[in-house]
Amino acid sequence: MPPPSFEGTSVTDVVELTKALIAAESVTPARGPVFDVLEAALLPLGFDVDRFVCGEAPDGPVENLIAVRGQGSRHLAFAGHVDVVPAGDGWTAGPFSGEERGGLVYGRGAVDMKGAVAAFAAACAQVPADAGTLSLLITGDEEGPAVFGTRAIIDRMAARGLAPDLCLVGEPTSTARLGDMIKIGRRGSVNIWIEVHGRQGHVAYPHLADNPISRLVGALAEIEALVLDEGTDWFQSSNIEVTDLDVGNPATNVIPGRAAARLSIRFNDLHRGDALIERVRAIVARHAPDSQVIGKVSGEAFLTPPGAFSTLVSDSIGEHTGLTPELSTTGGTSDARFLSRLCPTVEFGLLNATMHKLDEAVAVEDLRSLQAIYATLARRALDAA
Amino acid sequence: MPPPSFEGTSVTDVVELTKALIAAESVTPARGPVFDVLEAALLPLGFDVDRFVCGEAPDGPVENLIAVRGQGSRHLAFAGHVDVVPAGDGWTAGPFSGEERGGLVYGRGAVDMKGAVAAFAAACAQVPADAGTLSLLITGDEEGPAVFGTRAIIDRMAARGLAPDLCLVGEPTSTARLGDMIKIGRRGSVNIWIEVHGRQGHVAYPHLADNPISRLVGALAEIEALVLDEGTDWFQSSNIEVTDLDVGNPATNVIPGRAAARLSIRFNDLHRGDALIERVRAIVARHAPDSQVIGKVSGEAFLTPPGAFSTLVSDSIGEHTGLTPELSTTGGTSDARFLSRLCPTVEFGLLNATMHKLDEAVAVEDLRSLQAIYATLARRALDAA
Repeated sequence: MPPPSFEGTSVTDVVELTKALIAAESVTPARGPVFDVLEAALLPLGFDVDRFVCGEAPDGPVENLIAVRGQGSRHLAFAGHVDVVPAGDGWTAGPFSGEERGGLVYGRGAVDMKGAVAAFAAACAQVPADAGTLSLLITGDEEGPAVFGTRAIIDRMAARGLAPDLCLVGEPTSTARLGDMIKIGRRGSVNIWIEVHGRQGHVAYPHLADNPISRLVGALAEIEALVLDEGTDWFQSSNIEVTDLDVGNPATNVIPGRAAARLSIRFNDLHRGDALIERVRAIVARHAPDSQVIGKVSGEAFLTPPGAFSTLVSDSIGEHTGLTPELSTTGGTSDARFLSRLCPTVEFGLLNATMHKLDEAVAVEDLRSLQAIYATLARRALDAA
Repeated sequence: MPPPSFEGTSVTDVVELTKALIAAESVTPARGPVFDVLEAALLPLGFDVDRFVCGEAPDGPVENLIAVRGQGSRHLAFAGHVDVVPAGDGWTAGPFSGEERGGLVYGRGAVDMKGAVAAFAAACAQVPADAGTLSLLITGDEEGPAVFGTRAIIDRMAARGLAPDLCLVGEPTSTARLGDMIKIGRRGSVNIWIEVHGRQGHVAYPHLADNPISRLVGALAEIEALVLDEGTDWFQSSNIEVTDLDVGNPATNVIPGRAAARLSIRFNDLHRGDALIERVRAIVARHAPDSQVIGKVSGEAFLTPPGAFSTLVSDSIGEHTGLTPELSTTGGTSDARFLSRLCPTVEFGLLNATMHKLDEAVAVEDLRSLQAIYATLARRALDAA
């Protein structure tokens, strides 16, 4: 499918730009056409657009875009992605048609998060061009391995000497109404695989065997009893779940030689993933010297403590919606975990009810409100209000 | 294969009778030819032979034999089986050839327990016919489900008014030398299947889920910590082993909806199988109200406390071997668990080193010693020494 032409549509029309982005099919990893659409929208607004491809299989190649307008402080970055998860079968209309019906625009990526990217661009059109630095940091791989996505953008920005003062990530954070929730942090996530080895034997002669299940159960009971913390002002308490057990022994009279389990830990900013893996490893080793513990950190926790920036975002939301958003740290991981190392980072975007589902859709009214909120917060962030 | 003719061999030759029994192939459930061989050996000795078939598929039909000689007290029963486990591939000679080589008779059932059955018959030939009641209780299903085997024999004996005073089961109890161990009891055995139901969910939202693994691990940790007993004078302590765990959840970010485990308990005569199942069920129910616990008792524990009969057996063994046998309650279950409800029951037989294995074999010398021991203990049991 050739990229849709963007000629003839207004670059500041958030609805039309959303439809054009949806029509540029871009399942992870996104490259080419969807970036062409975005670039065509940004150039008339005075942005310098830097598109680059990096990485090799299996986690690449990935296309990314850094668009910058203006110079000097302050620098507000709008961050997000134009890749989408696969459409799946069973849509009412085509998942890449961008059909508008009953006040909704349908399509994969409508809320996660092409609608927000369109609102970034449309909002920038409402900000004076001389009001400090505005940038769009847009990756083609947020839904995938994300190895050559936002991390590569951060590296390239550093090389170019670009350092934002504030970052707004446009992930769909709203739940029931646009603006009811923003994210000021996210929990970290780590998965841990445990394998315990024993000595197989007959249940009638347990002294000749060494049951790895006994050792595993002892370790898991101790791990289950861990209180990692009681939560913080901004985070719920860290939580461990055992998500799988596996032995695979069909014989009732046999003590097996091996037992395995898998854990998933979601943790707040009192912890680091590697330290949690070591803590689990120490417990398992005490119960089962002959064991293997492998951990994989999906993301560290981060927090942008409530302050000037979150208040600015909240006030902007309140002005256009009348709502006072909840400051939340719930949910999975997002690219904000990388960006938050650069500067205060807040996530705010569309309703997440239909994201990743069939018939993903965004209300036209929400797109226009989001544009207005982004424009207000950008002007205020750049002291141009 | 037609039944081998027993004509021309001496009914009191334990070695020839063992070979003839081995040659009558009789993988569980045994019927017909192998009983023909045994009946042909017993009739000349003055036994009344009662053969009967009972049960239907899948646990039957099974053939059994009750042979009785003499009348009145005292009544000694020799009990055993003529069915065998499958031969398996890789024997040096044919598993049903009964080949004699280097002082050993080879064949499936040589020690478990056609050799002992032959020794029963040969021993009876050495006991005065007027010395009380001698019986042989021989089933064709001890190695299989054993539903229509020894239990059916016990029912039929009751119907006929036959009540032995003492019972000698000829299972292979010897370990390194003939006569080094007899069994005066056996532990019971029960298997228990546990399934815990929870509510599936996403690991990032544990409050919306109910992890069945947490509940199962809690229950198993409590079960593992149970001290059922400290053992008795004659039994080692009862023991619980968790023999399997199963969840089968491939997704690292999903809390599963179901978790399962399997236990095997070997218990001494301080316990009953059903009570142990109830005890496990109560623990599991406390941790996991939505759970299922299914138990199956393979056999209850029994003990014939050391006394006159075990002393008689020991003394008879000592007279012919110079050994003082260990009085043991180790190992798996045997039909003695049923017979011990009738009268004092002791198990003593050949070496168990090759039972159920390839090239199962019995020493000719052991067969003759076993016959002599059985004859001595029979004469003494019947006060005819």
